[in-house]
Amino acid sequence: MAVAAPPTVALRWDGRSLAVLDQTALPARDVWLELTGAADTAAAIRRLAVRGAPLIGIAAAYGLAMEVARRPGLGTLEDGAEVLAAARPTAVNLGWAVERVRAAALGAGVATMAAAARAEAQRIHAEEDAASAAIARHGAEVLADARRILTICNTGALAAGGSGTALAVILERHRRDGVHVLACETRPLLQGARLTAWELQRAGVPFELVVDSAAAGLIRRRDADAVIAGCDRVARNGDVANKVGTYGLALAARAAGIPFVIAGPTSSIDPNLPHGDRIVIEERGAEEVLAVGGAEIAPPGTAVRNPAFDVTPAELITALVTERGVVAPPTAAGVAELLGR
Amino acid sequence: MAVAAPPTVALRWDGRSLAVLDQTALPARDVWLELTGAADTAAAIRRLAVRGAPLIGIAAAYGLAMEVARRPGLGTLEDGAEVLAAARPTAVNLGWAVERVRAAALGAGVATMAAAARAEAQRIHAEEDAASAAIARHGAEVLADARRILTICNTGALAAGGSGTALAVILERHRRDGVHVLACETRPLLQGARLTAWELQRAGVPFELVVDSAAAGLIRRRDADAVIAGCDRVARNGDVANKVGTYGLALAARAAGIPFVIAGPTSSIDPNLPHGDRIVIEERGAEEVLAVGGAEIAPPGTAVRNPAFDVTPAELITALVTERGVVAPPTAAGVAELLGR
Repeated sequence: MAVAAPPTVALRWDGRSLAVLDQTALPARDVWLELTGAADTAAAIRRLAVRGAPLIGIAAAYGLAMEVARRPGLGTLEDGAEVLAAARPTAVNLGWAVERVRAAALGAGVATMAAAARAEAQRIHAEEDAASAAIARHGAEVLADARRILTICNTGALAAGGSGTALAVILERHRRDGVHVLACETRPLLQGARLTAWELQRAGVPFELVVDSAAAGLIRRRDADAVIAGCDRVARNGDVANKVGTYGLALAARAAGIPFVIAGPTSSIDPNLPHGDRIVIEERGAEEVLAVGGAEIAPPGTAVRNPAFDVTPAELITALVTERGVVAPPTAAGVAELLGR
Repeated sequence: MAVAAPPTVALRWDGRSLAVLDQTALPARDVWLELTGAADTAAAIRRLAVRGAPLIGIAAAYGLAMEVARRPGLGTLEDGAEVLAAARPTAVNLGWAVERVRAAALGAGVATMAAAARAEAQRIHAEEDAASAAIARHGAEVLADARRILTICNTGALAAGGSGTALAVILERHRRDGVHVLACETRPLLQGARLTAWELQRAGVPFELVVDSAAAGLIRRRDADAVIAGCDRVARNGDVANKVGTYGLALAARAAGIPFVIAGPTSSIDPNLPHGDRIVIEERGAEEVLAVGGAEIAPPGTAVRNPAFDVTPAELITALVTERGVVAPPTAAGVAELLGR
């Protein structure tokens, strides 16, 4: 337990092909998937083998670059961009990264399209890697007084190009002062129990796992000093779509008077979106709720509502932490100023 | 589907011995357990084979009656009362029912102790059965405008002597106008997914199952008109301890401006408790969180916080519905007046 594991990496690019850690198999097994183009990368994103808003942007960028490398041409580029951008609806990073690679390829022309797409994908990867480190630093300053931090879902190295977003902040706080984490298990797919627990164990950070519904009561009893979460899409006014359950944590933090912080790269901000109620919330399949590790949890024939995200209004957010700095509290003016930096 | 199943019964008393439906085996299997005295009844309560605040009161009353019938005497009575009252700490009905049977037995003397204890247990059972019906009627009036009702845990016939508390209100609303239910799965032990889904299917009430963390966002989007939950212990000022997750639902309902209603028999009110922060919250074992249907959900060695209940302050509660009537909103004066009826 005392020996720190090597840093977690969720994605490997060798200059030509992409391998991703299949996050549906964690923590039981380390399975790497070789991806070769747009269709298999989109499929891996859809079934959450690759997940986390920043990471799916990076994977989609490489997916499109691999696609045009196989068969350079305008049709390939447009078809590949379409299938990748449509893989999941909520995280804005996906469309943003695909559009950057598409624009770079279009600007280059067919002869150098593959090289231009690859270079742009690598640039996105490098930028997101650097963003993690900056988010960790800025967030650790915002939460300088927090020793007991509650979080949801997985927002670490498994969710991003570098060390992550909200979990990167927690790890940085741990390096500076030592912290204790309350990790929400994050039903239905248990990214907290499976992935965050795995990352925290490897990093040697003390933590306790809680069922999602226990968070509000524990916050009320002041068993947490602060809550931090990631983001899948941030509107211009600072409203945030993130993993389902985030909104409830924000309500509990506000009622208890503790900070509620959102961390993510500026690539998660959607400048075209005026407010959060316009965000498309992905509804996923019933089977994610009805079976856990192969075990059926409800009677046959049970109907399910399974929204993957919810929206937290800006007024409940203490601070929005990005690689370019912090907006506290997030406002339309503050977000605009941040994007102009 | 159109043929209504016979009414659910969670407990059978034949005048001499007690059989309980093992709720840990539902919905997969109907297993009945024969109970014979204090120790096995307490064990069944501890491991949640019998659960729900009103039902554990009834079961404990019969457990003590069976114990003194086997070996009438003061020692048997006191030892049996102690083991039963200590089976679980949060629901006040348990201690209340045990104390009633104990007092009746003490008043009778050794010669007629067994008959007096049995008669008192049967009286408690009959009272709680009648309370369910009255709660259903009162609650259906409070929620007369609600067609889409969100609830947590199981508060139906599996939780009470009669048709239940919060779920009995929902069934009565369905008989009158037809309703749609959003049922929270209720981690860690999934009483919503396993038990409420089973009862709603048998009653032919349309419903959708949701993960607990989805409730707040769905309430924010007005996918529910009202929230109703049961109670394990109500303080004199109207604060309520109930299944973990209830407090978060109350915060979400308040933010959305929809009613948040608590339903339970007056046996769940603790007149000795000034306010909710004095309620002992049962912390249960890590294994309840770490394994679902035999499947491990987190890496080996993961530590867990597992509070079984949380406390909702009275100011977030729109109405407290009991068999004696409704206090809306619950206040110390209103609760005192209710107990005096």
